[in-house]
Amino acid sequence: MTTTPDRPRVAIALVHFPVIRDRFGSVGATSVTPLNVHDLARAARTYGVAPLYVVTPLLSQQALIGRILSHYREGYGAGANPTRAEALRDVVLSGSINEALDDLCRRTGGYPSVVGTAARQGPKSIGFPDLAARMRENSGSWLLLFGTGWGLGPEAAAQCDFFLGPVRGPGEFNHLPVRSAVAVILDRLFGK
Amino acid sequence: MTTTPDRPRVAIALVHFPVIRDRFGSVGATSVTPLNVHDLARAARTYGVAPLYVVTPLLSQQALIGRILSHYREGYGAGANPTRAEALRDVVLSGSINEALDDLCRRTGGYPSVVGTAARQGPKSIGFPDLAARMRENSGSWLLLFGTGWGLGPEAAAQCDFFLGPVRGPGEFNHLPVRSAVAVILDRLFGK
Repeated sequence: MTTTPDRPRVAIALVHFPVIRDRFGSVGATSVTPLNVHDLARAARTYGVAPLYVVTPLLSQQALIGRILSHYREGYGAGANPTRAEALRDVVLSGSINEALDDLCRRTGGYPSVVGTAARQGPKSIGFPDLAARMRENSGSWLLLFGTGWGLGPEAAAQCDFFLGPVRGPGEFNHLPVRSAVAVILDRLFGK
Repeated sequence: MTTTPDRPRVAIALVHFPVIRDRFGSVGATSVTPLNVHDLARAARTYGVAPLYVVTPLLSQQALIGRILSHYREGYGAGANPTRAEALRDVVLSGSINEALDDLCRRTGGYPSVVGTAARQGPKSIGFPDLAARMRENSGSWLLLFGTGWGLGPEAAAQCDFFLGPVRGPGEFNHLPVRSAVAVILDRLFGK
């Protein structure tokens, strides 16, 4: 895990289970989109957060992502596209959110604060400047959960200590892809 | 074009020609990535900028994007996925940057200021807060050019009045995908 003296230890997780996977609200697993792994890894490297946990309990999906990571980190892709190897360096496959939390505990020596995103304001809602300030002041570690599909399922949301609201512009349209939302959120928290 | 009284008229262009299309610096056309059209359209709608010009002189590529736009704006996709129809509403296909500029002139009644991105500082460099302030103060229109591949070719860069620097985080890694960079840039200029 990369750390610099004046920065908090922040990791992110791209969560494929348990998430809301359709417009009817059913909870389950989504498929991993390989492009999202690349895009989030590049955003994570840009903003100095690590690891990027890719969370899926599906063994076939883990195998797929494992092959992609091997190709770019050690295989032909490592020489052909070194910046991709560098971006994917800190990607860690996890079978569950708890497995990601356990790994982060081992790396940092303490249980992280967990931050999710939510469409509605609630008791655990936090704004971007407030979260950035807490991260600077708090010496502990943090895990930001990004749900795919229609967002984190209730079981995953129950593990969150804080919720960021959705990324909004001046209007009402609220349908950014997860790869764009993650880049904007990391920029709001860690951009110069 | 959507405008609100207190906001400038800002449009963006996803440029596939003339761009630097490989690591050796050759200038030409890149292929359109359909996913980028969706992602940039969603970011544009989120931040209230329009139109999104998709610039390519290649007729086969224009036909491909035209089919995708028809599917989601008028075809089966319009009913199946209305937010996608809404996002793609303001996408305009253009054969060149000049064609996009002409269209924007017709819509706004004046020639826009043109902003590109550049990796290096130069005489036309401008920071994000400075550009946001100029956009608020200037009653004219603006066109932000986003080059695909390795960035805008010299001929396109020569049309720019200003250049924004690359989106950076705290470290040296500078390889955000264009779809992430556009979302972050629009958030820095127009986010709440």
